[in-house]
Amino acid sequence: MTDVVQEILEEVHALCVADTSGGVADYIPELAAANPDRFGICLTTADGHVYQVGDTDVPFTIQSVSKPFTYALALTDRGESAVARKIDVEPSGEPFNEISLDPVTERPRNPMINAGAITSASLVRGATPDEQFERIRASFSRYAGRELAMNAAVHASESRTGHRNRAIGHMLRSFGIVEGDPDAMVDLYFRQCSLDVTCRDIGVMAATLANNGLNPCTDVRALEPVLVERVLSVMTTCGMYDGAGDWVNRVGLPAKSGVAGAVLAVLPGQLGISVFSPRLDAHGNSVRGVMACRELSSRLELHFLHVGRAARSAVRAEYTVADSPSRRRRTAAEQETLAARGRRVRVFELHGDLLFSAAESVVRAVSTAVDHGADDGSALDGVILDMRRVDEVSDVARSMLDTLAAGLRRQGCAAVLVDPRGAMAHTVSSLSEHDGSGRVFDDLDSALRWGEDTVLDRWCGGARQPTEVTVVQHPIITALDEAYRDAVTSRTTDAHYSAGTVIAEVGDVSLGLVMVLSGRVAVDFIGADGRARAVSTLSAGMSFGEMPLVRRSRFGLRITAVKDTTVAILGPKDFDALTESNPHAKTALLEVLLDRAYEQAESIVAALRRSGVV
Amino acid sequence: MTDVVQEILEEVHALCVADTSGGVADYIPELAAANPDRFGICLTTADGHVYQVGDTDVPFTIQSVSKPFTYALALTDRGESAVARKIDVEPSGEPFNEISLDPVTERPRNPMINAGAITSASLVRGATPDEQFERIRASFSRYAGRELAMNAAVHASESRTGHRNRAIGHMLRSFGIVEGDPDAMVDLYFRQCSLDVTCRDIGVMAATLANNGLNPCTDVRALEPVLVERVLSVMTTCGMYDGAGDWVNRVGLPAKSGVAGAVLAVLPGQLGISVFSPRLDAHGNSVRGVMACRELSSRLELHFLHVGRAARSAVRAEYTVADSPSRRRRTAAEQETLAARGRRVRVFELHGDLLFSAAESVVRAVSTAVDHGADDGSALDGVILDMRRVDEVSDVARSMLDTLAAGLRRQGCAAVLVDPRGAMAHTVSSLSEHDGSGRVFDDLDSALRWGEDTVLDRWCGGARQPTEVTVVQHPIITALDEAYRDAVTSRTTDAHYSAGTVIAEVGDVSLGLVMVLSGRVAVDFIGADGRARAVSTLSAGMSFGEMPLVRRSRFGLRITAVKDTTVAILGPKDFDALTESNPHAKTALLEVLLDRAYEQAESIVAALRRSGVV
Repeated sequence: MTDVVQEILEEVHALCVADTSGGVADYIPELAAANPDRFGICLTTADGHVYQVGDTDVPFTIQSVSKPFTYALALTDRGESAVARKIDVEPSGEPFNEISLDPVTERPRNPMINAGAITSASLVRGATPDEQFERIRASFSRYAGRELAMNAAVHASESRTGHRNRAIGHMLRSFGIVEGDPDAMVDLYFRQCSLDVTCRDIGVMAATLANNGLNPCTDVRALEPVLVERVLSVMTTCGMYDGAGDWVNRVGLPAKSGVAGAVLAVLPGQLGISVFSPRLDAHGNSVRGVMACRELSSRLELHFLHVGRAARSAVRAEYTVADSPSRRRRTAAEQETLAARGRRVRVFELHGDLLFSAAESVVRAVSTAVDHGADDGSALDGVILDMRRVDEVSDVARSMLDTLAAGLRRQGCAAVLVDPRGAMAHTVSSLSEHDGSGRVFDDLDSALRWGEDTVLDRWCGGARQPTEVTVVQHPIITALDEAYRDAVTSRTTDAHYSAGTVIAEVGDVSLGLVMVLSGRVAVDFIGADGRARAVSTLSAGMSFGEMPLVRRSRFGLRITAVKDTTVAILGPKDFDALTESNPHAKTALLEVLLDRAYEQAESIVAALRRSGVV
Repeated sequence: MTDVVQEILEEVHALCVADTSGGVADYIPELAAANPDRFGICLTTADGHVYQVGDTDVPFTIQSVSKPFTYALALTDRGESAVARKIDVEPSGEPFNEISLDPVTERPRNPMINAGAITSASLVRGATPDEQFERIRASFSRYAGRELAMNAAVHASESRTGHRNRAIGHMLRSFGIVEGDPDAMVDLYFRQCSLDVTCRDIGVMAATLANNGLNPCTDVRALEPVLVERVLSVMTTCGMYDGAGDWVNRVGLPAKSGVAGAVLAVLPGQLGISVFSPRLDAHGNSVRGVMACRELSSRLELHFLHVGRAARSAVRAEYTVADSPSRRRRTAAEQETLAARGRRVRVFELHGDLLFSAAESVVRAVSTAVDHGADDGSALDGVILDMRRVDEVSDVARSMLDTLAAGLRRQGCAAVLVDPRGAMAHTVSSLSEHDGSGRVFDDLDSALRWGEDTVLDRWCGGARQPTEVTVVQHPIITALDEAYRDAVTSRTTDAHYSAGTVIAEVGDVSLGLVMVLSGRVAVDFIGADGRARAVSTLSAGMSFGEMPLVRRSRFGLRITAVKDTTVAILGPKDFDALTESNPHAKTALLEVLLDRAYEQAESIVAALRRSGVV
């Protein structure tokens, strides 16, 4: 297929491959022998998809790219404050292999210079250096998603020639930063640096950091989320040796480079980039590695300070129960009250991820509505937060919304949620919404009915919708011309269902036209997973079963008595027989049903329009 | 109202006010005379809402908080490369007032130390220092949203005592970094530092950076978006003097502090934080300023490397036109073809912001579907990208999707958009969707019909839906028992409308039952703004006008003939008269209409369920 991202990577590869400046590291024969023309780039998404071009499967030693990962392991093993007592996190402005500590703190300036990296390794748990090394190797393997192994030849060379690092080790020992045998800790560091990886491996390691410490290819956790931010912070300020400022300016991704020619960069939450090309610049960073990261950051707009656009409000729509009535039938007195007082219950439709800024916009919108209501004498009786389009809710956002709701309740304004997926982590109580205690609804219509009832309970002095009707009081019957009512009601039979009874299951044949006289009936859609999801709840004066009756089809929804329920049923045979026995009554009945069907379609379309779907 | 954010700010204020460590700057009498107990915090959202607690309206001199803003002005006036030749962007690891340049580059190490800041000021355009200063003052005023003025007493004191800065000025002159009279440029810098601001002012300045350079309170642009990232980058690595690493670790916001006790921090796209408290720590940063920023960052999860969660796929639903038919009536042969081949056209419902990672997930999902189709022998004929729930589309994402579409077309797979808001910036052509050239639809149903037609044109050998029917061939009539057809058709009258005619306007009374025999009719919803939005398009075999007819209501939608159109109308009087003259025919007709109403309601509910609304 069209490989849009692949083509971008190939363009960047072709652009950077032309640059043959710089030279390979030559302080040990193994690095000096590297093929300088090798060049691979991987872009690995935070869900584990790998795009790659060039030499992405050639092994090389991880070298300094290891430093953030060992630092992360030290933080895991010893805790942040114990590590902070041994290693600072300030950019050094000095070469990575300087044999010096910060003159004031007498600590390595950061974990990305050799002194700090040797200290990190020494802090990894293990009774012996071998145990410590195995712990490091196993940890790195979790990031890479495969078992990594040490390159013995490189390790032997590093050991033979590593006098400068040994000097650093003894300096660290003399200041009490490293405990025990400093040579053993320096050797541990050499072994860590000699682990063989490929460009693809470090791409997955980067993607694991981008995915908050969880390896997206294996689903194995490599690092606790709380430490990811800390490791990425140090990479931001100290990862690219003394080119950190220019790197943040021109690339803007936490990163780490290694002397074998690797660069690893992370866009938190999004992706990892890895590049392998052995020729190094004066800073010791891969020439093409830096160039490829710059190109990708600029072309794909990956800079971590890039403002795509300012945060928008998390409130996508705001209206009152007067603007958007529920599907429940209301008496004339009720309708009048709702027209006059319906704006005392407001619905706020939220969307997107709720982190601090988004939650702030919700709190502000609700507060503005409450204050405005107080100003013009129509204080709010209720607030409905519709969470159905919300994706993620952070802890701080959840706590802010809870505080908001508590504050509203203190001033006499009820606050409820429409939250079928439990984004706010409060209990879903879809069947208790009418008894006043439920504060989480599965569907908006139930919440709207709750809002209307809240207004009506407080403000409606006139006749309320009865909780119980006789068949002749049922709105389907009263909508008929008086002359035809008997023809219909004489053919209905009453039925009683105790709470919990399934009245009709999905696939059942038509029961006829079922008019609810008392009690409560739940209408549920049954998902492929077998789980019931509330579509609506019916009470006295409402009806069901029209569709299978008229279309000669079967029930597509499950109908359950939620409370003890009485209904009047006009069975299919009686419905059909009416055509012959009293065609005018039949015509009148069909017109009532058609009217109700169109009314329902209109209310659905109005809801869709409100929510921007059409 | 419940002030959720206000309460958080007050808690942080109460926590930090207890810390009375540190001392006020004392190198000039005016700063030494500052009330050390002053303490204000503002949190200003990127849309300009200010939360504040404490001493947020007390004036103080801006001092070093000015540095990023003058640097931004220098970048605006001279361009990035000209400024880069004069000032580096590397953390210095040295005190802010060091009289030295980078020994290698012979430039100030960054614009946040005095040497770099004096250089920035010298680069601001203006024929005289007075003109340059006025340009700086006017620029800062745009960020603050009010006219700022210089504190003459502080400026006089700075001038009297500023020998160290004069030394820096002459050093800069000797290296050719500053041109002209260095004393004048140092004085320009003193004037800039002596501008009076409040905590609220610098909060708005921070929010302006967070809002990509546009002041959210005044809607005045203070800085070009392309430079915002660059200024924030330098603040990230160099803004907090030599505590940059710790700051990034523990706060993680680009920031700048000033010696009068101010700290300004920015969360790009979200908000600005400003704190004023004059007691300074050993770095020269406000003690409470640093503490308050740490607390707010931690409590509100503001760290810029914080991963709320990994990027999710931008594809929220994926289905075929076989899964989700359009509302257009199809012949038996057509239905058979669509059942067998309908999976050759796939719909991808996208949502959220489309930046690189989101666009990548779309490209990957579409490519996977295309590859999968190729594997199992059912290559795709068409792809519909439903953009209705997409918020923002970045340039790179737009280009990626365009490349994807072009690639699809090259291999014979058409690609169209449902994009009523023009998120992809392609031309909307809602009325030309059936002639094959249109590739942007206003509504999903039209796109589904296009998808079905694409499949049918290629694969349907049987009878196709006619472009023209007679009234006796109209599905409403053929659905009637044969015995009743004449009773209805004998009462209909034909009508012709030429293309462009409005058949029914919103508010018109019922025309009757209108059956389309040929041509095309648009059904539009007219918004409060008077703009027409397509609800559906009707062709031969479809109908309209049932709802106002049965409900005795008025048209809620506008009906327009898009092409020359012929209809058969059963007028309201004839519809009513039928009850008396032939009640069985009337019953049969009502049953057909009810069947169609339920069918439509079912298809709407199915669409809602698919899109997760219910």
